[in-house]
Amino acid sequence: MKSDKSINVGIIGFGTVGSGVADLFSVNLPSQINLKKIAVKNISKERKTRFSNLTGNPMELIEDPEINIIVELIGGYKPAKDYILKAIEKGKHVVTANKAVISEFGPEIFKAAEEYKVNIGFEGSVAGGIQIINPLVEQFSCGKIENISGILNGTTNFILTRMSEGMSYEDALIIAQEKGFAEADPSFDVDGLDAAQKISILASLAFGRWIRPNEVYTEGITQISPVDIEYAKELGYVIKLIATARKTNREEIDIRVHPALINANNRLAKVNEEFNAIQILGNPFDEYFNVGKGAGKGPTAFSVYNDIVKLAEMIRSKTLRKIKFENENIRIADQNDVKTEGYLRIYLRHVPGSFHSVIGILAEHGWNLKDSIQRSGKGFEIDYNGVKCLPDIITHEPLPFKTIRETLADLEKLQIGKGSPVYGKPYYMRIRQDF
Amino acid sequence: MKSDKSINVGIIGFGTVGSGVADLFSVNLPSQINLKKIAVKNISKERKTRFSNLTGNPMELIEDPEINIIVELIGGYKPAKDYILKAIEKGKHVVTANKAVISEFGPEIFKAAEEYKVNIGFEGSVAGGIQIINPLVEQFSCGKIENISGILNGTTNFILTRMSEGMSYEDALIIAQEKGFAEADPSFDVDGLDAAQKISILASLAFGRWIRPNEVYTEGITQISPVDIEYAKELGYVIKLIATARKTNREEIDIRVHPALINANNRLAKVNEEFNAIQILGNPFDEYFNVGKGAGKGPTAFSVYNDIVKLAEMIRSKTLRKIKFENENIRIADQNDVKTEGYLRIYLRHVPGSFHSVIGILAEHGWNLKDSIQRSGKGFEIDYNGVKCLPDIITHEPLPFKTIRETLADLEKLQIGKGSPVYGKPYYMRIRQDF
Repeated sequence: MKSDKSINVGIIGFGTVGSGVADLFSVNLPSQINLKKIAVKNISKERKTRFSNLTGNPMELIEDPEINIIVELIGGYKPAKDYILKAIEKGKHVVTANKAVISEFGPEIFKAAEEYKVNIGFEGSVAGGIQIINPLVEQFSCGKIENISGILNGTTNFILTRMSEGMSYEDALIIAQEKGFAEADPSFDVDGLDAAQKISILASLAFGRWIRPNEVYTEGITQISPVDIEYAKELGYVIKLIATARKTNREEIDIRVHPALINANNRLAKVNEEFNAIQILGNPFDEYFNVGKGAGKGPTAFSVYNDIVKLAEMIRSKTLRKIKFENENIRIADQNDVKTEGYLRIYLRHVPGSFHSVIGILAEHGWNLKDSIQRSGKGFEIDYNGVKCLPDIITHEPLPFKTIRETLADLEKLQIGKGSPVYGKPYYMRIRQDF
Repeated sequence: MKSDKSINVGIIGFGTVGSGVADLFSVNLPSQINLKKIAVKNISKERKTRFSNLTGNPMELIEDPEINIIVELIGGYKPAKDYILKAIEKGKHVVTANKAVISEFGPEIFKAAEEYKVNIGFEGSVAGGIQIINPLVEQFSCGKIENISGILNGTTNFILTRMSEGMSYEDALIIAQEKGFAEADPSFDVDGLDAAQKISILASLAFGRWIRPNEVYTEGITQISPVDIEYAKELGYVIKLIATARKTNREEIDIRVHPALINANNRLAKVNEEFNAIQILGNPFDEYFNVGKGAGKGPTAFSVYNDIVKLAEMIRSKTLRKIKFENENIRIADQNDVKTEGYLRIYLRHVPGSFHSVIGILAEHGWNLKDSIQRSGKGFEIDYNGVKCLPDIITHEPLPFKTIRETLADLEKLQIGKGSPVYGKPYYMRIRQDF
């Protein structure tokens, strides 16, 4: 290793991850990398830290000619994006763990970095403790990725793990909030938006076409009930919030985040608690599967720290890492065209003919049924205006998602009117194909 | 990326992995890295390859002043080690997938590399498709590894997977041989020697103390019977050949390869077929778990190719990567001192008092029993000279391995003589503690 001169680092943001990175600096003393200054939100707050060089003004770091690497750890779009761009314009290399900014403004940031000849490290932006961004940028370029999928949100995985043990969604959410895994307003996690930002970053790197989070078909986990957990288990599946992206045979990118029934023997089915996992299928490596903690002080700080060391080495060796998107013309697949197997849960009113009405609609839309379960006495009955309602579970052979949507719209109509055969909206989940 | 000049690569060995690497070169055309020449064993053999610059003489590559990187893919100790050292002495950087040479002669090779200012890439030497060597050298240095364990031998994992489905060891081995996963003489794999070489490399990097394969306590899988598979399953375990290394609370390194009962819910329990897996526990990353194919053309070529690209970048940036062993004084733990839980299978002659004799010996040695199973009618009976013998299964609370060895020696004596209470040698397996 050459050691021309010291590299100075400035960190913007001294929350959980920021203090984790500072801890790693205080323990490891990396050779000739100095943590020079940290910009904090509230300079007058009392802190337990051995690190004393704090400022309330991030621009002090960005304008400091001695600082080579700016580490942005405040999260969110604003002002994080501005700090990143200003740092780049000042010729500073940037490390960030900000999935929002990278997923939304990645191309703008990478273009600025190219223009000002600096490097961007963003390993911490997806799945904290798993090293996946740098391998995607540097190693997988020699191969062909067919599919990149994962469990990218620890909060929902924790909730689904509790639900798999019999807990309701609502109770599991409360425990997740108590443990600090879920926010007071959990919607960003439970609606799949967090996972959508992350898969958009991974898929963009994997397929060389920038995909923004709003291009990702996204469903959350809030509609999953203990009925679904139970019958999924009976059918040999586990329900996980899956983020997935693949090349279709039309060479489009099929990218989505949604709960899915996955085969209980699939590796992803076995990733529980708040863990994340990423599975890459392709050539010539065949399968690449990583599990680690997705968030938290230690795991994310580990990624950020390693990025700092990596960027310091690139500064010394005058290496510029180009983040390329050479397939900008690839289209994102219309979900209507994507074929899928799936699972339907519908509450039938316990009266003659109700099942017949439902099956009639499925037949009209060309559903070829695989499993069909209705069972009384499991405790899943609902009393609706004095009429018992029982959940019916149906799985089917692959159909275009357009057909599914049309079927569901027709099934929804069945709940209307007196003596209607169905109670409530039907709930549909995809079944993940095994590879 | 700077592009001062082209990097020329010479490959020694054109077998499965060598041709896989050549394939990757022909598809990817990495910028300014040329595959200049390949040294083959038999130059007159007909080959299906677009690559025409072959030679029968490896020294031609090593002495070629235009070649910057020598890729050694012939395997085995001799002459591979000589080629590597000669290449280093000629100032060439070296990529190798040779676990035998690295595990046995690593320190010598790294010392020579330091002296001649070249880099060594050996990502392909352990668990082909899993990227673990470079992360251990570059990333984990900022953390503290407590335990590094894995399933490092695909052959035995394939055999144990078939056995978990009810097949005998002998039948599973034949299938593994038919599929090309096992050699005609399978002993190197099934006796655990291959896994011992690999864990010695991983543990050396993880703990900064070179550990030679002969310092690794090693047991193979040949004694495992369907009885063990069945009862392990009943007790909630799966049997895997585990390679493991950890720091003890005496700050010694406890390193071993042996079949172990692992909790069926542990991630390692779910890695089946010919897959490998590596689990690292420590701070601040918590858990780092990777699965991939351990061998074969594609996965290993992927690692070798990435190492070539990595070394080419290091050549351009004049970076020397130091592989350090700063804790050479750490002792390897004596297995006698290591405490373990375990599983004992012993065939009792079906006569009054036989169980009493066995239990008496266990009591004498201080065994505190957890599970005890004897069951007739499971088809596990053996007829020995007209006396039925039944397997007895016992698990116990932690004991020093020394006590286990002494107990087993005493139990072995029970099989001697007419009317002896025991048939055959008892078989003992450790139960892996969950972390």
